[in-house]
Amino acid sequence: MQRQDFPRSPLGLHRVIEPAGALPQAAWRVDPSPRLWPDEVRVRVERLNLDAASFRQLTEAVQADAANTEGGHAAAMRAAVLGIVAERGKMQNPVTGSGGMLTGIVEEVGPDSPLGLAAGDRIATLVSLSLTPLAITDGLAHWDGRSEQVPCDGHAILFGRSIAAVLPADMPVPLALAVLDVCGAPALTARVVREAWSGGTPPVVAILGAAGKSGSLSAAAAREAGARTVIGLVPTQAEADLLSKADLVDEVVIADARDPAAVAQSVRAAGGPAQVTVVCVDVPGCEGGAVLATADGGTVIFFSMATSFSAAALGAEGVAADITMLIGNGYVPGHAALALDLVRAETGVRQIFESRTAEG
Amino acid sequence: MQRQDFPRSPLGLHRVIEPAGALPQAAWRVDPSPRLWPDEVRVRVERLNLDAASFRQLTEAVQADAANTEGGHAAAMRAAVLGIVAERGKMQNPVTGSGGMLTGIVEEVGPDSPLGLAAGDRIATLVSLSLTPLAITDGLAHWDGRSEQVPCDGHAILFGRSIAAVLPADMPVPLALAVLDVCGAPALTARVVREAWSGGTPPVVAILGAAGKSGSLSAAAAREAGARTVIGLVPTQAEADLLSKADLVDEVVIADARDPAAVAQSVRAAGGPAQVTVVCVDVPGCEGGAVLATADGGTVIFFSMATSFSAAALGAEGVAADITMLIGNGYVPGHAALALDLVRAETGVRQIFESRTAEG
Repeated sequence: MQRQDFPRSPLGLHRVIEPAGALPQAAWRVDPSPRLWPDEVRVRVERLNLDAASFRQLTEAVQADAANTEGGHAAAMRAAVLGIVAERGKMQNPVTGSGGMLTGIVEEVGPDSPLGLAAGDRIATLVSLSLTPLAITDGLAHWDGRSEQVPCDGHAILFGRSIAAVLPADMPVPLALAVLDVCGAPALTARVVREAWSGGTPPVVAILGAAGKSGSLSAAAAREAGARTVIGLVPTQAEADLLSKADLVDEVVIADARDPAAVAQSVRAAGGPAQVTVVCVDVPGCEGGAVLATADGGTVIFFSMATSFSAAALGAEGVAADITMLIGNGYVPGHAALALDLVRAETGVRQIFESRTAEG
Repeated sequence: MQRQDFPRSPLGLHRVIEPAGALPQAAWRVDPSPRLWPDEVRVRVERLNLDAASFRQLTEAVQADAANTEGGHAAAMRAAVLGIVAERGKMQNPVTGSGGMLTGIVEEVGPDSPLGLAAGDRIATLVSLSLTPLAITDGLAHWDGRSEQVPCDGHAILFGRSIAAVLPADMPVPLALAVLDVCGAPALTARVVREAWSGGTPPVVAILGAAGKSGSLSAAAAREAGARTVIGLVPTQAEADLLSKADLVDEVVIADARDPAAVAQSVRAAGGPAQVTVVCVDVPGCEGGAVLATADGGTVIFFSMATSFSAAALGAEGVAADITMLIGNGYVPGHAALALDLVRAETGVRQIFESRTAEG
C-alpha cells in the first residue's frame, strides 16, 4: 500500500517498504517497481558509478572469497552488487551506508514531475544510489569488477525532489559521471573558502587526498575562490608526481593521512596550519590529522564517507580545538555546473580524472 | 618506550600503546600508569559520568546476561565497565566510541603542566573519558549500575592540552558534573544562533530532545542568544509536561525524532522550519527529521554521539537540502562558565537536571 500524504510523495516515502516512515536513504528496503507515481521519472540505466568507499569495501570483502568462486573476482563482485540490489531495492552498501550515482536515458516522465526532464534525455542522477530505487536486469554481465563504473541494464526511479543533470555534450560520459559524482565537494569548498575570506585575509587551504577526484576538484575550487595557499597532501611519491604535474596546488606534501602528528607537521611545514581543511581520503582514521592541521577558528570539511562522527567530535574536543567541523553535504545549488566548468577550465583536473577513470 | 618529540607530548601521544601514532582518542589502548610525564596531572578519581549513548548501549548489552549473572544487573554493569578499562586503559565504549567525563581531586601536578591546577583542587575533566588514561582500584563496589554517574576510586591522567574545570562551590557535585559533561552544546548553540542573526532577523530554533540535559541547556542558550522562537521537540507527554513546566521554550511539540515526516510536520506547525536545528536525542536515526525540519540556508548541529555521518551527508543530499551540518565539537572557549551560568540563571534548567540526575 502506498501512502499519499504530503510531504511524503516528493521525498519518495511511498516507496519505502522497511522500516515504515523512514526516508528512502535510511530505509533498509525500498520498492523499485517500474510503475510511476505521478511526480516520478523512470530511467533506463546505462551505468552505475559506485562511490569510492563502497567500492573499496566490496573489493576487500570479496578478496577472500574470490579465489574459491567460479569466475574469480569479477563473479564475486557481480554477486555482491546483485545481492544488495535484490535485497534492498537500491544499491546501498550495508557496511558503508553509501551508494554512488548512475547514468541512463529517461524512459518515462510522470505528469507531475518537476524535474524538467523529457524522454530520451541522457542524464546523471545527483542524488545518491543509496536512496534510488533500482532493478538490474542484465546480471552485470559487462562488468569486470575492477572499476567503480559498472555497465548495467535495468531501471531506476527519480522522485519529485530528486536531482538529475542532463549530461554535457562536450565530454565523454565516464568523465562527466565521475565529475558529477563528487560535484558537491568543490561547491562546498568554494563556499567555505569565500566565507573564510570575510576576515579580510585569504585563507590557507589544506586538501587531504588532493590527487583524487573530489580532492583535485576541491583544490581547483579553493584556488578559484581565492585561497592564499593551497596545500595538497597525498600518501605516495607517485601521487605527489601526479599532483605536481597537474599544477592545482601551491605545495605538495607526502604523509599518511591517518597519522595525526605527521599530517599536522607536514601541513605546518608547508605554510599551515590551515584555515580550511578538506578531507577527501576514503579510508577511516583521518579525523585526528585534519583537526590538528587546522588553525583555531578554522573549518574542517569532511567529504569522505569513511568519516566517523564520534571520532571527529571527540577528537576535536580531546585536543581543545576550537574549530568548525562540517559534514560534507553533497548538495549545494549550482554544484553540477561549477564542477563541470572546473574540468573545462583546468587541464590538471581533467588529467587527474582521466588517470583515475578506466574508460576516460 | 615513550616518544618525546613535539607535538606529541601535550596531546598524550606518548601514552598510546596501540596502534602507534594514533591520538589517544582514536587509540585502542593507552597506558594509564600513575608515573607522570612532566606536563601531566594525576587525579584521584571520585566519580565517572558515562555519556548517555554509552550508558544506554551498556545497559542494553548486559540486559540479556544480567539474569544469569550472580549479582544481576549491577554486577553485569560493573563487569562491563571494568573489562573495558582493564583492556583499553580508558573508559571508551568500543561500540559507541564515546566516553563521558570524571571528577576527582588533583593528586600530583607535573612541573611543566600548563593547566593551572594545584594538588587538592576538586575538578571535573572537560575532555572525554574516551582519551583519558584511567585505572580503577575499587571494583566499582559502590555503583548500582542504574545511574550514568559511577562512584569510583582510582586514578586518571590529564595531558598538557587536556581541559579541566575546578568545580563550583555553589552547586552539588553531581549537578555540576552533569552540566559540565554537556557544556559544549549550549556554547556552540549560542554561537550558531548569534551567527544566524547576521541576516538581521532572529532565527527560529528547533531543539530535538529539549527535555534532556544537553537539550534543555541548548534551549536556554538559544533563547539567551536571541532566538525568535524556540521549539522544543520531545517524544512523550510526560517529557512535554516536564519541558512546559521548566518554561525554557516557546513551543512544545511531541513527535518521534526518528520519524522524519512527523518531525518536519510538527516543527512546521509550531512556527518552523527552523533556521537552526539542534539534535540532542541519543538514539540513532534522527538525521532525516533534523534535515527536513531545517529551512534552506539553515544549520543543523548534531550533538548526539548516535549520529551517523553517512546518514546525515546522504540524507541531506537525497532531499536536495541546502543546509549546513555541523559535527558538535565539545570544545568551545568559555563553555564551562557559560553552562554553569545558565544553570544558575534558569530555574527550569536546574529542574530538568535534578529530575534526571539520580543523586542531584
